[in-house]
Amino acid sequence: MRQTLTIWCNQSLNEASMQELRAETKGHQLLLENAGITNLKAGEPSELMSKADIAFGQPHVAQSASLASLRWIHLTSAGYTLYDSPEFRQAVTARGATLTNSSSVYDEPCAQHLLAFMLSFARRLPHCAHEQTDGYWAYERLRDKVRVLEDETVLILGYGAIGRRLAQLLAPFRLKIHGVRRAPKADEYAEVHSLDRLGDLLPAVDHIVNILPASPSTAGFVNEDFIQRTKPGAILYNVGRGSTVDQPALRAALLDERLSAAYLDVTDPEPLPADHFLWTTPNCFISPHIAGGRQEEHEHLVRHFVRNLRRFEAGEPLIDVVI
Amino acid sequence: MRQTLTIWCNQSLNEASMQELRAETKGHQLLLENAGITNLKAGEPSELMSKADIAFGQPHVAQSASLASLRWIHLTSAGYTLYDSPEFRQAVTARGATLTNSSSVYDEPCAQHLLAFMLSFARRLPHCAHEQTDGYWAYERLRDKVRVLEDETVLILGYGAIGRRLAQLLAPFRLKIHGVRRAPKADEYAEVHSLDRLGDLLPAVDHIVNILPASPSTAGFVNEDFIQRTKPGAILYNVGRGSTVDQPALRAALLDERLSAAYLDVTDPEPLPADHFLWTTPNCFISPHIAGGRQEEHEHLVRHFVRNLRRFEAGEPLIDVVI
Repeated sequence: MRQTLTIWCNQSLNEASMQELRAETKGHQLLLENAGITNLKAGEPSELMSKADIAFGQPHVAQSASLASLRWIHLTSAGYTLYDSPEFRQAVTARGATLTNSSSVYDEPCAQHLLAFMLSFARRLPHCAHEQTDGYWAYERLRDKVRVLEDETVLILGYGAIGRRLAQLLAPFRLKIHGVRRAPKADEYAEVHSLDRLGDLLPAVDHIVNILPASPSTAGFVNEDFIQRTKPGAILYNVGRGSTVDQPALRAALLDERLSAAYLDVTDPEPLPADHFLWTTPNCFISPHIAGGRQEEHEHLVRHFVRNLRRFEAGEPLIDVVI
Repeated sequence: MRQTLTIWCNQSLNEASMQELRAETKGHQLLLENAGITNLKAGEPSELMSKADIAFGQPHVAQSASLASLRWIHLTSAGYTLYDSPEFRQAVTARGATLTNSSSVYDEPCAQHLLAFMLSFARRLPHCAHEQTDGYWAYERLRDKVRVLEDETVLILGYGAIGRRLAQLLAPFRLKIHGVRRAPKADEYAEVHSLDRLGDLLPAVDHIVNILPASPSTAGFVNEDFIQRTKPGAILYNVGRGSTVDQPALRAALLDERLSAAYLDVTDPEPLPADHFLWTTPNCFISPHIAGGRQEEHEHLVRHFVRNLRRFEAGEPLIDVVI
């Protein structure tokens, strides 16, 4: 007989996906915090959660670390910075619990967003849009400037699930793809290196893709010194976290054309204030933290959780395990 | 001993690629029309060309049809509409001559341009740019609107070398890809159909990619009737020829949101006049006939010709044979 589990959820969900969650968790007990209408941010400790076997959403960090009854925490984000401390790992591991994230849901949109950034600049689409506002057919101005992604080098900083999916999408292009991560693993889509190789790699890289998470060690990672070591004219893309880039240094590099362009989906702070210098920095293109967005996002979050729930019920290994 | 050939060229080339052409044709006779500085358009008949075995560039149509000594014509464009008549085919075939084009040079940029169009709209990059001019962090407005290319259907009209390369670039995406062409051939990247299947296919297509050449049979191909048969909200992309689209019908379809968007690299006429209605039609995005542009375009044109010249010298089959 299947065990009845108590599933706590504080993820805000639209009606269709909430129905799907209810239907797929039938036979278990579903505890909805604030009737499923809460913020995505890790909030206050929850009375309800103290009764749960499973937490689905964005649970309070210290509480989910300390609750002895909580056997599995499934985050509805790809990022897990708040939960990424030695104390949290220790507490969760000690009681044999598991932390998973929703990386599988966000890999695809983030990778496609990055490819959209890369191709949009190569094909000079922002320039075309600018000329269009003047009704000007800029063949002469632009025909010599458009580029193909070919015979160039891409460096993916923080080569994880998103980076790997980007490398897959780039596989049909004739590019050289390097990944850098804390613990390198052999990979069929990219040559993956440890962080200490960065200095050797940077001078030959045309496209720097930053997917670094926020952490004390990544704060201001892309700073003046980093930029000085890049190939002149390189392009920076950031869908990681805004804190990983020294923004004044980036502005300076764009102003003197040391870098050709920057495409930022994340900034520091967010939302970026209307009078912030990044908005008007030349060749700085900003999207408002939407790289993870996709059609039916809530449905995909629920389906990913349910896929893992079936595995949890059956005692099988979960997908997207963080701890 | 290698035969000395007379090679006529009216392609305008930059200095580096002209040097490369001279070096690679050493031992042959190179006849440069206007010292290599002419228009790309098929011009006047040429005195010089009458002495040539090979024409490289954009030769006069009737003259290159009638010159008995001309054994091979290599066009520096992918399009060959002017040369695509029964009379021309007949004349060239009758004397055992060959017409090749530069399709291999333009496949890659055109396919990448199309993918840039597709991803740019899916990720709402034009909307991001618009919000950026106001310094507005439009997370709430855009997060629900961004999309991934997934579980959707792409139809490629005029499935040739460019369409096939696009289908290759789209292979890692989870999309259904149909091609339509006059003479369907089995293909590993797309399901290829004859033109008479179009009516069945259109209602299920999300992305309509138009790569049709200009011809009497393609004039106004995408007209009101065509648009009425499409799936509501479909997106049209055109890198073929402007004449294949009924532009007033397209404007009407965009105004009433029957189509979600149109991305046009070609228009009728070109250049598009500053006061033309397409410039200001909502969700109509225009690039000025630059889809074929790429870095080192001239070098690639010369290298492609030289690759074929080596084959011609050796009596081997040429690449990109049209006739």
